[in-house]
Amino acid sequence: MSEKFTKLKALIAEVSDLNAAQALLDWDQQTYMPSGGAEGRGHQLATLGSLTHQKFTSPKIGALIEDLKKEFADADPDSDEARYLKVVSKDYDQATKVPAEFVAKFALLTAHAHETWAKARQEDNFSLFQPDLEEILKMRKEYISFFPPADHPYDTLLDQFEPGMKTADVKEIFGVLRERQVELLKNIASAKQVNDDFLHINYPEKQQWDFGVEVATKFGYDWNRGRQDKSVHPFTTSFGINDVRITTRFMEDFFPSALFGTMHEAGHGLYEMGINQEYSRTPLAGGASLGVHESQSRLWENLVGRSMPFWEHFYPRLQETFPSQLGNVALPDFYKGINKVEPSLIRVEADEATYNMHIMLRLELEIAMIEGSVEIKDLPTLWNTKFEEYLGITPPNDAEGVLQDIHWSFGGLGYFSTYALGNLISVQLWEKMNEDIPDIDEQIRKGEFSTLLGWLRKNVHTHGRKYEPQELVQRVTGSKITPEPYLRYLENKYSEIYGL
Amino acid sequence: MSEKFTKLKALIAEVSDLNAAQALLDWDQQTYMPSGGAEGRGHQLATLGSLTHQKFTSPKIGALIEDLKKEFADADPDSDEARYLKVVSKDYDQATKVPAEFVAKFALLTAHAHETWAKARQEDNFSLFQPDLEEILKMRKEYISFFPPADHPYDTLLDQFEPGMKTADVKEIFGVLRERQVELLKNIASAKQVNDDFLHINYPEKQQWDFGVEVATKFGYDWNRGRQDKSVHPFTTSFGINDVRITTRFMEDFFPSALFGTMHEAGHGLYEMGINQEYSRTPLAGGASLGVHESQSRLWENLVGRSMPFWEHFYPRLQETFPSQLGNVALPDFYKGINKVEPSLIRVEADEATYNMHIMLRLELEIAMIEGSVEIKDLPTLWNTKFEEYLGITPPNDAEGVLQDIHWSFGGLGYFSTYALGNLISVQLWEKMNEDIPDIDEQIRKGEFSTLLGWLRKNVHTHGRKYEPQELVQRVTGSKITPEPYLRYLENKYSEIYGL
Repeated sequence: MSEKFTKLKALIAEVSDLNAAQALLDWDQQTYMPSGGAEGRGHQLATLGSLTHQKFTSPKIGALIEDLKKEFADADPDSDEARYLKVVSKDYDQATKVPAEFVAKFALLTAHAHETWAKARQEDNFSLFQPDLEEILKMRKEYISFFPPADHPYDTLLDQFEPGMKTADVKEIFGVLRERQVELLKNIASAKQVNDDFLHINYPEKQQWDFGVEVATKFGYDWNRGRQDKSVHPFTTSFGINDVRITTRFMEDFFPSALFGTMHEAGHGLYEMGINQEYSRTPLAGGASLGVHESQSRLWENLVGRSMPFWEHFYPRLQETFPSQLGNVALPDFYKGINKVEPSLIRVEADEATYNMHIMLRLELEIAMIEGSVEIKDLPTLWNTKFEEYLGITPPNDAEGVLQDIHWSFGGLGYFSTYALGNLISVQLWEKMNEDIPDIDEQIRKGEFSTLLGWLRKNVHTHGRKYEPQELVQRVTGSKITPEPYLRYLENKYSEIYGL
Repeated sequence: MSEKFTKLKALIAEVSDLNAAQALLDWDQQTYMPSGGAEGRGHQLATLGSLTHQKFTSPKIGALIEDLKKEFADADPDSDEARYLKVVSKDYDQATKVPAEFVAKFALLTAHAHETWAKARQEDNFSLFQPDLEEILKMRKEYISFFPPADHPYDTLLDQFEPGMKTADVKEIFGVLRERQVELLKNIASAKQVNDDFLHINYPEKQQWDFGVEVATKFGYDWNRGRQDKSVHPFTTSFGINDVRITTRFMEDFFPSALFGTMHEAGHGLYEMGINQEYSRTPLAGGASLGVHESQSRLWENLVGRSMPFWEHFYPRLQETFPSQLGNVALPDFYKGINKVEPSLIRVEADEATYNMHIMLRLELEIAMIEGSVEIKDLPTLWNTKFEEYLGITPPNDAEGVLQDIHWSFGGLGYFSTYALGNLISVQLWEKMNEDIPDIDEQIRKGEFSTLLGWLRKNVHTHGRKYEPQELVQRVTGSKITPEPYLRYLENKYSEIYGL
């Protein structure tokens, strides 16, 4: 390793350490911090954040990157070293291309916007949020202008969350999804509905916790390198490959919330735990993108956790744990219950069959905003029209409509599609995995997940951020991200459940 | 406030934030971190530590301090601003006077010494640790040489932990303690011994936890600004005045450990919580010294928690909580049991009457080391001789003798006396408080602690690090730290318990 490369790695390792410290401040704030600590914590996060940014964007790092690009000109472009440099270089560009004054101004704006959004949602009054959202849109367009022109201006925003993903790609993907998912939902709506009343009764927290831990342990979640705690919003965080933590929350009158939440977060956690240990303290020690990360959480939550083979193994244990609640519910009814489809207003509560429709709606509005083909003031009406078209219901108010998500208030345009891409990628990987492990259903039926986890580690986890999402999916499955596998999966699964 | 002062405060506030982040990394490591996180945590602490040092010792801060010293020349020397500058200036001196290479070399040495000490203790072989301890002593002497000559070279070491305290002061104090405490212990040894068998039976952890929380709550510990968790070694830490956390540990077959531990840590915590809110994010937001801090923990643990008035209130509740264990133990017997005196080998297990003797022994050896009047190789023999003289027993081996403490292995010469000073200060404050609140016993007998806490807040807590320990004690009690009140307290209390 050249002296310069050693130097760059040492500097970047320190930046990783500082990022880990910030992640811990954040984890603590969401799990154990007493309320009195909030103000101080704000200062600590701000100080550490600006210091980390300062350290990372130092010209010394910029110069090393430029020198090493020349040095690496003839290196194998797929070597870890070359990929490390590529990722660091891209991160450095993103951090330095945007002027510091712009960042500060945008931080002030979004701090204000967060408040106006919360108030607007509380009072169901979009006009309170409108001026700030207009300003946010203006500044997002300015942000785009700091980067080289792309095929579509929205590409620059997408690239922040889903590196290398193009607006044309997502438009094409969602074009296919739209038609067939709307069709599927119509068929489901006119079929005999599923009963899930037995999920909405009292399930004591302690048993829920224990059952979730048992499942995560079977999945292969390593408690020597992780832990689970409670928080208001479940999340996964990591302070390094060997300290990856998940959180969950409990609803005593709706049992699926915590259990599927734990499977979901354990899926994120398994990804982080499976990254090549050589990538410790480097920017390669992370997920390829939000979408690929979501593919791992969705895979364990939905493709494993809401499948019949999984419950053939676990349902007797679950009935033992909750005899009065589930003793008289037969497995086929339980399976249908946890897979019930019901168009609803709120994205975060949506089921597998409707979820992507919530995303599509937002993505279309965001692209229209960036293209300038919709005015902010018209968003509520447009939201409701599209909602009716895709999900068959009309939001009774803006609080449960266009104002429901926090994302736009922090300027997160470009974020939403990653949720849907995660669904697609999960099934695309799943199909390939099924080819490689033909008896996977049989293994799951026995409660065995190590071959599955091994496959995911080898094909996805170990690479961390080395490959961009499209590249990773192509390498593993032989094609780019495509909606076909997901649609096949949905149509098969729900045709069977709803007898279509 | 002058522009320069504003600038200095902003820079120092950031240093405070970074220190708080380090404290959280440490708290997490001792409470919740999975074992896999250890290596990464080491990197994170090292990076944040060196960055904080770098930031604090920047010449920019040095120049501001010098300019402000001139600017403040005519200011009230007792104003918060003048004291702030004094404390920052002293901290800055301590951080900059020692060359960076020396700090790095010493860190390497103590890392090694920690291992040789642990091995030496495990194998009961002092000679394994001897070479490193000799080197540590040499480097401590070199450390002293970086500072202006003091009355006694040991002063410079004391000053790190007990600002302003002189070797002559502690020699005088311990001279008085030695004679009268040795005498008291002899008298106790020849009196009828106390029975505490009922403390050494099973007390379930859950009830211990709840009872400790009940007591801490009554003391005034604010759970909105703090919390309690479990750790191997109990400690108190703070990430700001409004986030002060304590930890405890449980022994199911020795109930006093957790309860008095909780009272002790709550005492530390109440100190930190009571600091003037104006001192947030400044170096004034801390204890005056380790000794003054220990005075607060000891006051709540011993002067309150091991007193008869306290148990007149709480004993019925304790009996209710542990009916099978304590139902047949009368209050006077319980009171004697928790105050049992028994010379023992290990400092951290020592009772009120013997504790100071453990300290005195160490202090005398440390001063002799610095004066050069003892050679390291002779420490084990000298330890045992003095131990026999002060406590009437001879350690059967070095592991339970001279090798028992970790302190010398990290170079912490000058640290031990703060434990004993804490005991003295606690009673000196207590006597003054009794004058100011004549019915304090009556209040405690009713389980009321708010007047006591208010007195401590006003006289001690609110000032944080504004005053040095001697100055603080003088301001509150009218005299410097003196052993008389403590000896009076010990002699009265134990004469009664042991019928001397």
